[in-house]
Amino acid sequence: MAATMDESPVLARAAGETLAEQLAARFTERITQRLLAPGARLPSVRDCARRHRVSASTVVGAYERLQARGLVEARPQRGFFVRETQPARALPASRAAAPMPLPVDATALIRSMFQAQSGRPAPGMGTLPQEWLDGELLQRALRRLGSGDAGAWLRYGEPAGDAALREALAQRLADLGIAASPAQIMTSIGATHGLDIVSRTLLRPGDAVLVDEPGWSVEFARLTAAGMRLLPVPRGADGPDLAAMEALAREHRPRLYVTVSVLHNPTGSSLTAAAAHQVLRLAEAHDFVVVEDDTYAWLAPAHAPRLAQLDGLRRTVYVSGFSKILTPQWRVGFVAAAPALVERFIDTKLLGSLGTPGPLEHALAWCLSQGLLRRHAERIVARLDGARARVVRLAEDAGCRFVTPPQGLFGWIDVGADTERLAQNLLDEGWLTAPGLLFHPTRRPTTLMRVNFATSSEPGFWRRLRELADAA
Amino acid sequence: MAATMDESPVLARAAGETLAEQLAARFTERITQRLLAPGARLPSVRDCARRHRVSASTVVGAYERLQARGLVEARPQRGFFVRETQPARALPASRAAAPMPLPVDATALIRSMFQAQSGRPAPGMGTLPQEWLDGELLQRALRRLGSGDAGAWLRYGEPAGDAALREALAQRLADLGIAASPAQIMTSIGATHGLDIVSRTLLRPGDAVLVDEPGWSVEFARLTAAGMRLLPVPRGADGPDLAAMEALAREHRPRLYVTVSVLHNPTGSSLTAAAAHQVLRLAEAHDFVVVEDDTYAWLAPAHAPRLAQLDGLRRTVYVSGFSKILTPQWRVGFVAAAPALVERFIDTKLLGSLGTPGPLEHALAWCLSQGLLRRHAERIVARLDGARARVVRLAEDAGCRFVTPPQGLFGWIDVGADTERLAQNLLDEGWLTAPGLLFHPTRRPTTLMRVNFATSSEPGFWRRLRELADAA
Repeated sequence: MAATMDESPVLARAAGETLAEQLAARFTERITQRLLAPGARLPSVRDCARRHRVSASTVVGAYERLQARGLVEARPQRGFFVRETQPARALPASRAAAPMPLPVDATALIRSMFQAQSGRPAPGMGTLPQEWLDGELLQRALRRLGSGDAGAWLRYGEPAGDAALREALAQRLADLGIAASPAQIMTSIGATHGLDIVSRTLLRPGDAVLVDEPGWSVEFARLTAAGMRLLPVPRGADGPDLAAMEALAREHRPRLYVTVSVLHNPTGSSLTAAAAHQVLRLAEAHDFVVVEDDTYAWLAPAHAPRLAQLDGLRRTVYVSGFSKILTPQWRVGFVAAAPALVERFIDTKLLGSLGTPGPLEHALAWCLSQGLLRRHAERIVARLDGARARVVRLAEDAGCRFVTPPQGLFGWIDVGADTERLAQNLLDEGWLTAPGLLFHPTRRPTTLMRVNFATSSEPGFWRRLRELADAA
Repeated sequence: MAATMDESPVLARAAGETLAEQLAARFTERITQRLLAPGARLPSVRDCARRHRVSASTVVGAYERLQARGLVEARPQRGFFVRETQPARALPASRAAAPMPLPVDATALIRSMFQAQSGRPAPGMGTLPQEWLDGELLQRALRRLGSGDAGAWLRYGEPAGDAALREALAQRLADLGIAASPAQIMTSIGATHGLDIVSRTLLRPGDAVLVDEPGWSVEFARLTAAGMRLLPVPRGADGPDLAAMEALAREHRPRLYVTVSVLHNPTGSSLTAAAAHQVLRLAEAHDFVVVEDDTYAWLAPAHAPRLAQLDGLRRTVYVSGFSKILTPQWRVGFVAAAPALVERFIDTKLLGSLGTPGPLEHALAWCLSQGLLRRHAERIVARLDGARARVVRLAEDAGCRFVTPPQGLFGWIDVGADTERLAQNLLDEGWLTAPGLLFHPTRRPTTLMRVNFATSSEPGFWRRLRELADAA
């Protein structure tokens, strides 16, 4: 979609399609794809006319078509807004099941992760770009599967997941200073699935959950969809605001604290050992479980303090995966926890999917046990260090300020202008970005933005960002 | 575990272990593996002593050990019972999150699916035995992946699932008379995951759901764990009891009816076209959605009437997978529904796992598009027809009665004795069976049992079943 907008910024009269129809079709596509999220304001008629080089009446005609289709609504004196919920078309019934309301931004964020990219690198993407990853490693692993013993894949695997993989993961955790036997590990289809299994097992609707703010919207969205109450804790460079956490814990008695402790998304910050100790003390005092999402583990130094390491997996549940280092499509993740908890997680996993795909888990076990993934990760980290240095210079030259010290994959920057509108304008030119509002549980204007150090080193991006921000 | 019991039915004094300790260890293992389900009664002291050729005081000593470990409880005048919930050991806290209670039998059923088998075929298993499946087909598919374009696996796939697979599935559905475009199809990691996504999207805690009884306990367990109210509808040879369904619909206003319409588990029965029409009329009159679980599709004739075919995917959601025909470990399934519903299912899928494993989906697309799976299925069906004829003769010779006409993979038989106790006794000798209570939402004594036609053709099984049933 971004590609379309990019390749034909100027509308042209096509066979039988008026300019207003073409413009309406573009917005329809963007709304359907959720790149314009529910609640977002469309550009003003004047702005839109100028940008697309059409008359104001053409824009009005396009917006009226969108309104007639139920996609946007006019609010007097304020303009046109994307409707919060799309009308249910599926069920002919009077009483269609009501959709669970999701936080506005998460679906937009997720859907954008899957967008076919324009020719341009996407500073807003959440993973390493394809060309950084090791396709040959995956192919070798698959070829090994294709020539090994087929019998192993002809029955149900183990409820906990492939035994060889859990063995390799126990070794990997030992490298991080986390003692866990293979029996304490359960596989999942990615870290997100692991987090989902944990929250489905430990929470009931109405439970309160501490989360980092800013933080990962998919987590906010899933917890909200399941009926949980979010308790956002401000996240700083060293970790969560402990005073705020304590006050929330005292008042709301949360059951869980879900956190990315190392190379946090979006700020890139990591918990200090001292902060980790204090978090665990609060968890003990207020009796909540800590869910440590270590999605960025492979991009961080092994010696970075982990909550699971300090705690010894007593009160901490550790979740991680391989989307960031291997490939997002392989979909292998895992959960490590105390033995009795793991058994309950396995029950939830079995009820929800009767297990996970054995072949891919086994292939990954081979990559791990051969040391191939570790060597690949070392190359990635070195390359990321170089890219980060370049991006930091470009960003600062473009007048952006790093809110937290740049580390890992993501930079969290203040551009000095509202980033929601900026993101729409950049998208018109083919640049997919991640405006700050995507990382808050509730919609709010913000001048912050997350940039991916691996995909943001084109000077042209920073030039346009500055120009558009100044024009706002 | 079954193997252990089988290989050493006689306890022998081992180094430092008393006979009571050994016996307690065997029961502990069986309870931990959930082959002895919560709520199950242990054999009487006399029976157990006779079976294991030990003294009554040894059995009492073993049972007391189990009681001390919190695994069983004594009920005056009634004997020893497996405790309903195991004590939570994981959390050091005073306020450990309370586990969701699951229906007693489902976890036992699921865990037994994953059991390492004894040397003997398992008449209770839910899939085709490994030696019936086509390992070479899977290996060819994996080798193709290993030599194709690696780039495709280095980014997030499509939210809906692999495009080539959805194309092939649309063709497959057309063969079944179900019109669905690829855009109406979403992939999942197996049919169970598809059903989970559908129920998470359409239901809220407290909603009522019609289910077939007897039926698939994993579905009962998942719905119950999510807080739904089950409305069991008696399932006969032609389909559900329509009068009972109407009365339940009128009184409880269910949101969904979840059913295996073709080759139902455990009865093997299929809906007639007339019954399908009446079910859809009731769904319309009482405004509920029908979720058609077509897990056994590949074992049934293409012309078997499907609800989704009659309904045109208006009010019906169609779910199926490949565990029964390809391999349970591949974990690929799918959901087909009206376009707007599919978009909501995709949101749920993304929130829960950020997508599904692309490589396995793509490999399956190749198997489908080459006609390899269809030819494999034809061979399986012919072989199953032969096995079924043999098993029917053996079962009837052993005095068992088929409650529904034998079809497909499963026979539903009345053995004339309580099948829970019978299943434990058969397990002692290495035969894993599926007693009737596994297919009810609430525990009840029953003389019915499900047998797998592909794994029940050993005359010795039927002989022991008869002897043990007669002795009961």
